[in-house]
Amino acid sequence: MLQPRVSRSLVRVRYAETDAQGVVYYANYLIWFEVGRVDYLREMGADYAKLEARGQGVMIAEANCRYHAPARFGDELTISTWCDDIHRTSFRFRYEVKRGETLLAEGYTVQVFMDLVEGKPLRIPPEVRVLLEPVDV
Amino acid sequence: MLQPRVSRSLVRVRYAETDAQGVVYYANYLIWFEVGRVDYLREMGADYAKLEARGQGVMIAEANCRYHAPARFGDELTISTWCDDIHRTSFRFRYEVKRGETLLAEGYTVQVFMDLVEGKPLRIPPEVRVLLEPVDV
Amino acid sequence: MLQPRVSRSLVRVRYAETDAQGVVYYANYLIWFEVGRVDYLREMGADYAKLEARGQGVMIAEANCRYHAPARFGDELTISTWCDDIHRTSFRFRYEVKRGETLLAEGYTVQVFMDLVEGKPLRIPPEVRVLLEPVDV
Amino acid sequence: MLQPRVSRSLVRVRYAETDAQGVVYYANYLIWFEVGRVDYLREMGADYAKLEARGQGVMIAEANCRYHAPARFGDELTISTWCDDIHRTSFRFRYEVKRGETLLAEGYTVQVFMDLVEGKPLRIPPEVRVLLEPVDV
Repeated sequence: MLQPRVSRSLVRVRYAETDAQGVVYYANYLIWFEVGRVDYLREMGADYAKLEARGQGVMIAEANCRYHAPARFGDELTISTWCDDIHRTSFRFRYEVKRGETLLAEGYTVQVFMDLVEGKPLRIPPEVRVLLEPVDV
Repeated sequence: MLQPRVSRSLVRVRYAETDAQGVVYYANYLIWFEVGRVDYLREMGADYAKLEARGQGVMIAEANCRYHAPARFGDELTISTWCDDIHRTSFRFRYEVKRGETLLAEGYTVQVFMDLVEGKPLRIPPEVRVLLEPVDV
Repeated sequence: MLQPRVSRSLVRVRYAETDAQGVVYYANYLIWFEVGRVDYLREMGADYAKLEARGQGVMIAEANCRYHAPARFGDELTISTWCDDIHRTSFRFRYEVKRGETLLAEGYTVQVFMDLVEGKPLRIPPEVRVLLEPVDV
Repeated sequence: MLQPRVSRSLVRVRYAETDAQGVVYYANYLIWFEVGRVDYLREMGADYAKLEARGQGVMIAEANCRYHAPARFGDELTISTWCDDIHRTSFRFRYEVKRGETLLAEGYTVQVFMDLVEGKPLRIPPEVRVLLEPVDV
């Protein structure tokens, strides 16, 4: 059965990430999504340096987050990240933010693979695509 | 004809808001949405102090942003904010971020009106609802 | 009598800038210092594009802030910025953050003028130096 | 011989923390100082919950950072934190940020122990003071 690979990242909530309501400010979940995304790609063996040397990279086309329960200063959180959709030039990551078993937030980002020099979408190269695809388990 | 009221906010891109790609980091658009939202409510005459004194406020339930073109350091941007959906306890704001006539990003947030002391959704009080509703033009 | 030129910047405190103590998080004052610094240089007529085209810019060598009273969400603040010290390759900006007449914070940054391509300090060019020097009033 | 106790924190540079110069934005070092400070107090066994229940806490009175070399996206950094000065109501933390053996930045913060309800400085209680004092090694 084909299943997405999932990477897990740990973050501890910084005081800087809280706001005057005493909980984490909503934009900071997108920063944690980035932590999850970067960890996913590193774990799967993406070679950033090689991509950058070619002037390639990704740009975010869409970001979404649904907030279920607030995170607070000092909380230890787990970000789960997986890819659930791949197209010719774009792909989608899904994220879950949990404190223990409690789901605090979930969301997604859509990325476009880009020629950053030309500023144009590029077909996702095979060596990147293989990192995103589900595996048979 | 009923039309939503729109507030407009000006922001100039700070260096702090850029990232190593030389453009604005994606999470910062949600901060500008907050600027738009706060300006909307202030312009429409919302009395925050009164709401807070009662332990009332809003919590973000969902945020979404679609990115069309990057903003850069020093850009002067206009955030347009309006309410396009009101329910019993929640309402949705829509946002557009433009540099001149160029649409850079658009998105929405869904807010729930809350009893912050009890941590429970509250029916939107009439004096708040009237600030969100479309007006006859 | 020689006196430094002072530029003034207005910022309104964003919710994103507060923390769980209900006041502005301490690192954000350095972001406001940047706003002041950028406004100073723009007002004095610095030609960033020309400097960047030559691969020149500044790097922060030191930052300092003393906090006297907290800023809160919605506060309208004035950042005053002036240059009080110029050396061969570096210069210092001073900042005051006030709410009305109340001094909330004050600080300084030391910048080094750089060849960003070579990563080396550069003698401050005369057309930049003149923007930083005190004027006879 | 009396020596300060030193705690060490690891951070990996987030993309969100970089700016358009391709390096970490200068204000973010103060956020890492906070990470170091919080880890120091947790490691030494400070009981935050107990302090908060009494309405006690600390406020930053001064922050300083000197920047020696830039940190970049993905860098793994070590923050070393120790207390080098204790007065009746205030104390100073020192910080070093290193990548391997390379010192990237160093700084300090001065904190005042506060009755947060009254908004007044408080004598540092003995059970906090003991966490800050040097130990005989």
